[in-house]
Amino acid sequence: MVKRMLKYEAEAVDRVFHAVADANRRAIIERLTRSPATVSELAALLGVTVAATVQHLRVLQDSELVSSEKVGRVRTCRIDPAGLHNAEAWLTRQRTAWELRLDRLGAVLGDEAKESGR
Amino acid sequence: MVKRMLKYEAEAVDRVFHAVADANRRAIIERLTRSPATVSELAALLGVTVAATVQHLRVLQDSELVSSEKVGRVRTCRIDPAGLHNAEAWLTRQRTAWELRLDRLGAVLGDEAKESGR
Repeated sequence: MVKRMLKYEAEAVDRVFHAVADANRRAIIERLTRSPATVSELAALLGVTVAATVQHLRVLQDSELVSSEKVGRVRTCRIDPAGLHNAEAWLTRQRTAWELRLDRLGAVLGDEAKESGR
Repeated sequence: MVKRMLKYEAEAVDRVFHAVADANRRAIIERLTRSPATVSELAALLGVTVAATVQHLRVLQDSELVSSEKVGRVRTCRIDPAGLHNAEAWLTRQRTAWELRLDRLGAVLGDEAKESGR
């Protein structure tokens, strides 16, 4: 059960990083952090077809980075912060683990320098 | 010139996010933030062949997440923090832009509530 949950979490992180590994999809996210936008507005921003934009939006929605709502014939997209948060948390954890190790190395080297200076 | 530099930067971010969109490659990074490791140690950790591990390491080195050095027949890998930093900075920028917008929205809604309360 725990193993299945971990696998599910790992797959969710896979999806988010895959989604943001594309410059057009990152441009969509950058745009939506400012305000919601329609699919046509996003297509115009990227300079690609509506069909291509819909494909990118599907990837972003599957990774819970974007949500959308259709009213009449207009689909409006907005940012969904849940996905961003998990991906950022993973990266921050790695950086802090690495910095902690550097600090410990620095402390050890400092002690050795003091001892050899005696 | 500036455009070419921006394109190069975007491709570098593409590579980093692609590299970390795989659970095995994330496991390698998690391991290396603790201490350097040989290719065989990493293969044993993942439970995959040395050849498969070398493939993952190539992706990680291309995105400047890992560096390695061969002494005799043993290749030792270590974390390279440059790549992690850029990817984390992009994610943090999106989150803070989004939070800033929420704060502004909150302020506007607060003002409206006050006015309608008058």
